[in-house]
Amino acid sequence: MIESSANIEFKPRLRYGMVGGGQGSFIGDVHRKSIALDGMAEIAAGCFSRSADNTLATGAALGIKRERLYATYEEMAEEESKRADKIDFVVIVTPNYAHYGAAKAFLSRGIPVVCDKPLCIEASEARELQELAEKNKLLFCVTYTYSGNPAVKHGKALIKKGEIGKIHFITGEYPQEWLLAPSEKQGNKQAVWRTDPKLAGKSNSVGDLGSHIENLVHYFTGLKIKSLCARLDKIGPGRVLDDNATIMVEYDNGAKGVYWSSQVASGYDNALKVRIFGDKGAVEFNEEECNYIKFSQFGKPTTVLSRGRDPFDPHAQGFSRIPSGHPEGYFEALANIYKTFITALAKQKEGKPLTEDDLDFPTVEDGLNGVVFIGKCVESSDKGAVWVNL
Amino acid sequence: MIESSANIEFKPRLRYGMVGGGQGSFIGDVHRKSIALDGMAEIAAGCFSRSADNTLATGAALGIKRERLYATYEEMAEEESKRADKIDFVVIVTPNYAHYGAAKAFLSRGIPVVCDKPLCIEASEARELQELAEKNKLLFCVTYTYSGNPAVKHGKALIKKGEIGKIHFITGEYPQEWLLAPSEKQGNKQAVWRTDPKLAGKSNSVGDLGSHIENLVHYFTGLKIKSLCARLDKIGPGRVLDDNATIMVEYDNGAKGVYWSSQVASGYDNALKVRIFGDKGAVEFNEEECNYIKFSQFGKPTTVLSRGRDPFDPHAQGFSRIPSGHPEGYFEALANIYKTFITALAKQKEGKPLTEDDLDFPTVEDGLNGVVFIGKCVESSDKGAVWVNL
Amino acid sequence: MIESSANIEFKPRLRYGMVGGGQGSFIGDVHRKSIALDGMAEIAAGCFSRSADNTLATGAALGIKRERLYATYEEMAEEESKRADKIDFVVIVTPNYAHYGAAKAFLSRGIPVVCDKPLCIEASEARELQELAEKNKLLFCVTYTYSGNPAVKHGKALIKKGEIGKIHFITGEYPQEWLLAPSEKQGNKQAVWRTDPKLAGKSNSVGDLGSHIENLVHYFTGLKIKSLCARLDKIGPGRVLDDNATIMVEYDNGAKGVYWSSQVASGYDNALKVRIFGDKGAVEFNEEECNYIKFSQFGKPTTVLSRGRDPFDPHAQGFSRIPSGHPEGYFEALANIYKTFITALAKQKEGKPLTEDDLDFPTVEDGLNGVVFIGKCVESSDKGAVWVNL
Amino acid sequence: MIESSANIEFKPRLRYGMVGGGQGSFIGDVHRKSIALDGMAEIAAGCFSRSADNTLATGAALGIKRERLYATYEEMAEEESKRADKIDFVVIVTPNYAHYGAAKAFLSRGIPVVCDKPLCIEASEARELQELAEKNKLLFCVTYTYSGNPAVKHGKALIKKGEIGKIHFITGEYPQEWLLAPSEKQGNKQAVWRTDPKLAGKSNSVGDLGSHIENLVHYFTGLKIKSLCARLDKIGPGRVLDDNATIMVEYDNGAKGVYWSSQVASGYDNALKVRIFGDKGAVEFNEEECNYIKFSQFGKPTTVLSRGRDPFDPHAQGFSRIPSGHPEGYFEALANIYKTFITALAKQKEGKPLTEDDLDFPTVEDGLNGVVFIGKCVESSDKGAVWVNL
Repeated sequence: MIESSANIEFKPRLRYGMVGGGQGSFIGDVHRKSIALDGMAEIAAGCFSRSADNTLATGAALGIKRERLYATYEEMAEEESKRADKIDFVVIVTPNYAHYGAAKAFLSRGIPVVCDKPLCIEASEARELQELAEKNKLLFCVTYTYSGNPAVKHGKALIKKGEIGKIHFITGEYPQEWLLAPSEKQGNKQAVWRTDPKLAGKSNSVGDLGSHIENLVHYFTGLKIKSLCARLDKIGPGRVLDDNATIMVEYDNGAKGVYWSSQVASGYDNALKVRIFGDKGAVEFNEEECNYIKFSQFGKPTTVLSRGRDPFDPHAQGFSRIPSGHPEGYFEALANIYKTFITALAKQKEGKPLTEDDLDFPTVEDGLNGVVFIGKCVESSDKGAVWVNL
Repeated sequence: MIESSANIEFKPRLRYGMVGGGQGSFIGDVHRKSIALDGMAEIAAGCFSRSADNTLATGAALGIKRERLYATYEEMAEEESKRADKIDFVVIVTPNYAHYGAAKAFLSRGIPVVCDKPLCIEASEARELQELAEKNKLLFCVTYTYSGNPAVKHGKALIKKGEIGKIHFITGEYPQEWLLAPSEKQGNKQAVWRTDPKLAGKSNSVGDLGSHIENLVHYFTGLKIKSLCARLDKIGPGRVLDDNATIMVEYDNGAKGVYWSSQVASGYDNALKVRIFGDKGAVEFNEEECNYIKFSQFGKPTTVLSRGRDPFDPHAQGFSRIPSGHPEGYFEALANIYKTFITALAKQKEGKPLTEDDLDFPTVEDGLNGVVFIGKCVESSDKGAVWVNL
Repeated sequence: MIESSANIEFKPRLRYGMVGGGQGSFIGDVHRKSIALDGMAEIAAGCFSRSADNTLATGAALGIKRERLYATYEEMAEEESKRADKIDFVVIVTPNYAHYGAAKAFLSRGIPVVCDKPLCIEASEARELQELAEKNKLLFCVTYTYSGNPAVKHGKALIKKGEIGKIHFITGEYPQEWLLAPSEKQGNKQAVWRTDPKLAGKSNSVGDLGSHIENLVHYFTGLKIKSLCARLDKIGPGRVLDDNATIMVEYDNGAKGVYWSSQVASGYDNALKVRIFGDKGAVEFNEEECNYIKFSQFGKPTTVLSRGRDPFDPHAQGFSRIPSGHPEGYFEALANIYKTFITALAKQKEGKPLTEDDLDFPTVEDGLNGVVFIGKCVESSDKGAVWVNL
Repeated sequence: MIESSANIEFKPRLRYGMVGGGQGSFIGDVHRKSIALDGMAEIAAGCFSRSADNTLATGAALGIKRERLYATYEEMAEEESKRADKIDFVVIVTPNYAHYGAAKAFLSRGIPVVCDKPLCIEASEARELQELAEKNKLLFCVTYTYSGNPAVKHGKALIKKGEIGKIHFITGEYPQEWLLAPSEKQGNKQAVWRTDPKLAGKSNSVGDLGSHIENLVHYFTGLKIKSLCARLDKIGPGRVLDDNATIMVEYDNGAKGVYWSSQVASGYDNALKVRIFGDKGAVEFNEEECNYIKFSQFGKPTTVLSRGRDPFDPHAQGFSRIPSGHPEGYFEALANIYKTFITALAKQKEGKPLTEDDLDFPTVEDGLNGVVFIGKCVESSDKGAVWVNL
């Protein structure tokens, strides 16, 4: 229904810095646009590339003062932490291998962190970051974007209210097709780093896609994986990391599940789909149709709920910006993650207590879960696709 | 395109008998209607139930002469085999446990057999039937219905012509929701026998649904499963057979796959979906939209081919009865299986040689493959979801 | 849900004859297969073509006795009406122009009629047939197939129960693409007669497609058209009859509507879609997805009801043969029309009274409405797309 | 395909003001967010409401200096035009009735205008604004959002290249359901002004929705409407403006079309759909699935082209921000309109010539066409749904 959405209240205006995201990168610009959408933070500093030239050019294009463009993230963390007008948080959007070092540098100097997923390479690194954030009482967000969708938040609320009963089975799939081409040999920068273990870590398809399934299922259900059996396939010629993976999982409540991630599935763009089955009903979400959520109650007609049309849980509804049928998408979901994080940060700065809803963004703990999941998948596969405990 | 389909040529008129399919059964009537659609065979004899009353009532309703209604399939096989106007083939549509005995009875007396799937319980029984059919040179059809769809046949032709390249991954899923209800305790006859190991055999969901995936994938690709790792779940309270199963498979060409069958997946009616991914493209079939087949070629726009509209392989096209957009469905697919089988039988009777296309129906070998598959899934699951070779 | 559908009761076994439907025709074979599906009537006589050779060949292929193959429908009506084992009804599936004469011949001799739509060319002819049927107390069915779908029957029941409130607007569309090709110049028999006013009558697209919309809307709602404004387009080069038409209508209850029929709409196979909007909700049916019906209630989640899964009105449910997710299609819908007509005929022969449900097949009155509709569309268009009253 | 989108070049940073869009309004915030997404302009002045309090509160929330918040648009135009740091353009997002006066005030003082659609109430006003913009050489954008979609731009390119041949028929529909409720009596601000002729003008559903169809069809095809026959319905109790409308149109090339707009169509959110049929193929766009465009070529498989996956026309592709399968939506489409307008403005300021691609935003001429269209629809309907020339 079309109605006023004009909640024009004084909203936070924070400053942020960015590590990574220079010219030639993809995801940095996506983060900047998502933050700009709601206008709650402005970019003020950056170390956009290992190339100083790139950092300077990018910074100039973004209107950042020359003195706040840095050659290394260490220097940036050090210098920013001394400023009166220092950044309120840093956004880390480098290839995976550099996440840990950068995050540590800022956390150590008391600067909250937003880091792209996966959080880092090793579980031990992830635990260290978690402890550091906790010790320094710093908010830490890991940008699993898809939980930012209002439809996902409503699905989570339905499950929490018991609308689908006791969960017994879950499927997650995330097929893409783009690595059917040998793009890493054709200079595609994304392909180059994602298929290189030095830059991407232990896994490609599980690290990039499977970890989204893992996180989204956990967000929907609160379930944790107890054990898994994973088979990682290297299908593209010459690949040393997986580009396709099948993972059987068992959750702590006894429910079972199966995940499939692929970058060699012809006909699929970015088809993340998660289905949660309980003994009373089911919830199904498809990222490519992210304004909707399928909700089935056994014995009643199945429904596809539309953001803006069907009454959503109030917390979920609060993230919807425009009426039903006016599609929101990827930028808006990521903006919702940022809106929550920035609002929490602003409340924290003002000394206000944070509620559960205030903390509804993916945290360093989610990041840790992801890193453990990736590592265990690789371990299981390396042993011949056998069951391993988490 | 609407055009003449009037191939009114002299077509075979054979006689058939039926074992099972009396009042209260479901699938017997479906087979009779499917055979009637094309009018190539008429029912002439039957043993429709273990209850003689049921057989008599059913036979009378179907207009069968009293003398050709039998108390046991043994009697029926024996008596029919002596008649000058004996049945040309028998259709066996009992619960699974009785398939073997009935099939053997007719094969032994030289009568060709059409048997519902799964073929029987034990692999040894299946092999015996296969040998018997071979020895007596009798055609034997196992009614995996879905390969009867023209869209499936066209997909098979695309794959055979190399249109999707070398196959590297396959997904198959077959979710239903009906056993979310404790139907077997509520007197639903289908539920009663399918969940009872004495009547259904070693597996419920893999036997009923998973075996369809196994057969359809084999039909599309010709690939055979080399090893598998299966987890069979008993989710409904009190179930002794599986109602949900996840199966990782590896094929003889090195390709990998994952199958999921379920009768406890809220929101799903009969959603058999198979996706075959190769290094050049993919083919995807969804039984609930059986007039279409999705065909993806990497680097070209993905297409959904429509039966009757888009040019199909001539053999596939030959099974289409009406123009595009006029839906054909389950009966028509099963009728296609029967049309092929009956035509082959008639040619055989006339001493004509049978081509590969003539034999394009699921055979006793497909039935054997299915029984082996089911047995191995149960074995793998019983051992803790470990890998077993086939 | 899978459950027994075994209503094996003694069912009628009637005899029918056919006029039209010889080799090279399309729809005759479709009718024969649809009748065969349920096995309630057998073909016993025919005049399949103006060519005696064709009639003989077709009759022989169908196993009809030589003596019951006729050179003209007049002869057939005359001879059959004298036989003790005369046909119980005749099926007329000629091109439109011959419907009137054939129907009259059989009605005059006391033989009930099933006639393909549109009923005839002139409204006066239609009224004559209606009066003749009434006078001779003969059942007369006009095969508007689509009302045979169980999903349509359930939609009608929903509307009748007031579930969508007072109807205020209706859209109907029926796009096809096949006449984008100049098929009539390429020898396509269907195209030849449908684009020829001598064989098809006053209209092509409205006669073939628009009249289906008109009938289906009337079936759903009971509404009658009060006035209309139609524009018939002749788009294909050299066409003398319309191949595209837009029709604004007003109904007797004050509701409004708009219809569109086309044979030159690239990308569409047979996409009949009707949407009925009321002040409380809406019902939407799409023939290409004929196992489903969309049901919207304002203020509640929109649902897509699935034949066999969702509880249908008992009368509608009675026409469903197989469980949900097992598609039924065009043949099954037409078979439902025949099942109803034949059952009514059998009851009538036994002197039993006929209920409203017994008469749930399209009648000569529906046929008359269609002929009037077509004529008025042509009249409006010829006058410059102005409003005309019906 | 995921690849670098990092076109970080120096981009314009302009200043804009806003008329309308205060607290309680809907569309103002949507415009501000869309402009913010790409960061090419910042808000610097405003007259957000007829209520000064609202303007002050809104301006404060947006961080605008007190001195640049104005009580009337006249004052704002006058004062801003005198400043050295004056706004580069104004955005007018008031209810329809105030568009004309506000636009005139800024145009007269040499300030370029972006105005929400419909441009104004009377065709004479629209012509005056067009002349004023032309005389003063000022860019003028009317925000018909949907032409901002990359998929629409690609469809336009396909049509321009002749891929669908000569256009012969067009359908446009835009159903919504929200005014099934008597929202204007329940205080819904959107409903109040849209159903009030003093605020909305001569039409509600044609003005709000039908005009989008008109514009989008024109954008796709370049065709202009020559004559139309419209029937405007007032379905909701007590409505004095239409909430449903059917419009038959004829274009200047002889092609025909039919449009339907509705706010009382249960089950529809915002379902703008346009289908363009030519003698070689068709293009179809559905706003609710705005990342895709259906493209049919007669005789070839129909395709659904995916933004980011399938090769788009370079100009269209340039408006895509993220890879395929990552949905973009309403904000991104509107941002594309603004990006084009702002870039053109910046080039114009620098004295550079503007190309056709630079001017690919809806202009005051499009606005004029819309106002004429709305007026003629009302005229036709008032005369009894007769044909009128444009």
